[in-house]
Amino acid sequence: MSSSPEFGKLVVFGVGLIGGSFALALKAAGQVEEVVGFGRSLSTLTQALNRGVIDRIGVNPGQETLDADLVLIATPVGQMPEILARIAPYLGTDTIVTDGGSTKSDVVAAVREHFGVRTRQFVPAHPIAGAENSGVAAARADLFQHKKVVFTPLPENPVLNVARVRSAWEWCGGEIFELTPEEHDRVFAAVSHLPHLLAFALVHELAVRENSELYFNFAASGFRDFTRIAASHPEMWRDICLANRAALLVELERYQEQLGGLHDALSSGDGEVLEKIFDVARGARRAWGTGKSSA
Amino acid sequence: MSSSPEFGKLVVFGVGLIGGSFALALKAAGQVEEVVGFGRSLSTLTQALNRGVIDRIGVNPGQETLDADLVLIATPVGQMPEILARIAPYLGTDTIVTDGGSTKSDVVAAVREHFGVRTRQFVPAHPIAGAENSGVAAARADLFQHKKVVFTPLPENPVLNVARVRSAWEWCGGEIFELTPEEHDRVFAAVSHLPHLLAFALVHELAVRENSELYFNFAASGFRDFTRIAASHPEMWRDICLANRAALLVELERYQEQLGGLHDALSSGDGEVLEKIFDVARGARRAWGTGKSSA
Repeated sequence: MSSSPEFGKLVVFGVGLIGGSFALALKAAGQVEEVVGFGRSLSTLTQALNRGVIDRIGVNPGQETLDADLVLIATPVGQMPEILARIAPYLGTDTIVTDGGSTKSDVVAAVREHFGVRTRQFVPAHPIAGAENSGVAAARADLFQHKKVVFTPLPENPVLNVARVRSAWEWCGGEIFELTPEEHDRVFAAVSHLPHLLAFALVHELAVRENSELYFNFAASGFRDFTRIAASHPEMWRDICLANRAALLVELERYQEQLGGLHDALSSGDGEVLEKIFDVARGARRAWGTGKSSA
Repeated sequence: MSSSPEFGKLVVFGVGLIGGSFALALKAAGQVEEVVGFGRSLSTLTQALNRGVIDRIGVNPGQETLDADLVLIATPVGQMPEILARIAPYLGTDTIVTDGGSTKSDVVAAVREHFGVRTRQFVPAHPIAGAENSGVAAARADLFQHKKVVFTPLPENPVLNVARVRSAWEWCGGEIFELTPEEHDRVFAAVSHLPHLLAFALVHELAVRENSELYFNFAASGFRDFTRIAASHPEMWRDICLANRAALLVELERYQEQLGGLHDALSSGDGEVLEKIFDVARGARRAWGTGKSSA
């Protein structure tokens, strides 16, 4: 590329699927000069270095943040407060920070606590590009292509900071949507966090049976799709469930009520109620399925 | 083929995905001379005729059954008792009957009621090859290739009858497994019927919200896979749920208990319990996933 990159130095905390793909995408777009990676596992960081995902393994978070143009925090959300606390005192005045967390209210609360007046420099984001494969080995430059990225800008954010972070995610190929942190958490509790919980619950319930082999032997394609997300990262999902626990509990209770209704219909042999529920669900699922080929 | 077909005349009740694929598979294997189809919808039967799935549209079930070598009942299970009652008096002495029903105890009970001493001629089967696409348009000759077909032979069945029905399903490409009708219903309540109920419940719960569009707009790939089976045929699944309602209620109640435990862990912020459940589930799901590439 003849034009100079939009970002000089990018620092990534958590070089996994999201962090690694963000770095690869900005590199592929020629929009970053240098990528420095931090993480808990040296072998993961070495792998990231060997794959060209990062250019250097970071040693001192404060020092690297000082002259960074852009910082991405892409660790499980449970680790974010500690990282925010560590980098806050060293944050350069022109450094902007974003994240890839699957929950937003908790992240925003931690940012306000640790960043204080520098909260203006943090623009929260959530790229909707999860996969049951995690880790830097699964990272790829096109992960965010045509994927939604939800922004939850803060009242503290100057327009310019939002625009710069937005531009970074757009260079990655993402389509930007805006919600408030609370809206974000309510919506994702319903369409992502609850389904994960339900899939984990079903597989766990079968796995701990004495004769679980018999069951798994006859499980077929419907089961495979339904439970695909039960192969997701346990620690990451523990963090998400805890971080978004208020909204998730609301959704879980609504769902438990729904199951209670189905239990009643089943007990009393009420085929009419069952068929009506199935019919509404099928209609909605088909309408959604045809409208979202890229989701 | 130079050798003569194993079956002369096949009569199919319910020429949909399963019935149509069975006919196409036996034709492709050169193992059937003539296929006669019955169904509730003339347009479906005409479509089946035009696609070469059947050779004739049946008019009189009794008369066609009289000289049939093989009869497949592949309607939703709720319609089977009526069909069994209609053909029972006309059943040829050498005619053997099988079915494609997703539940077995109820079908066996209806067979014994209507067939009496001729129950010996009915060998129950359940091909594990469902898809959310139903109907004869989705039928294809290779649907059962390398798919499991569960047999639940009855004490009344002579070995020869089991062998002949087995051979028909094997010509279709299926791999035969044997369970008792009760074992079958317990296993499929857990790995198939319950997941369908759970997926229908989730999509229904979202679909009836006033702002359901907001939710569906941010639903992504995890949601898509989890809810794929919620696009299944409502009437068929109403029948399955009612037919297998005793076993399904047991599974539903176990699952409700499991969700109750997750609700407690979530309420009290017990991350250790959550992570342990997720971890066991992921381990079991991954072990199953790698062992079953063809499922």
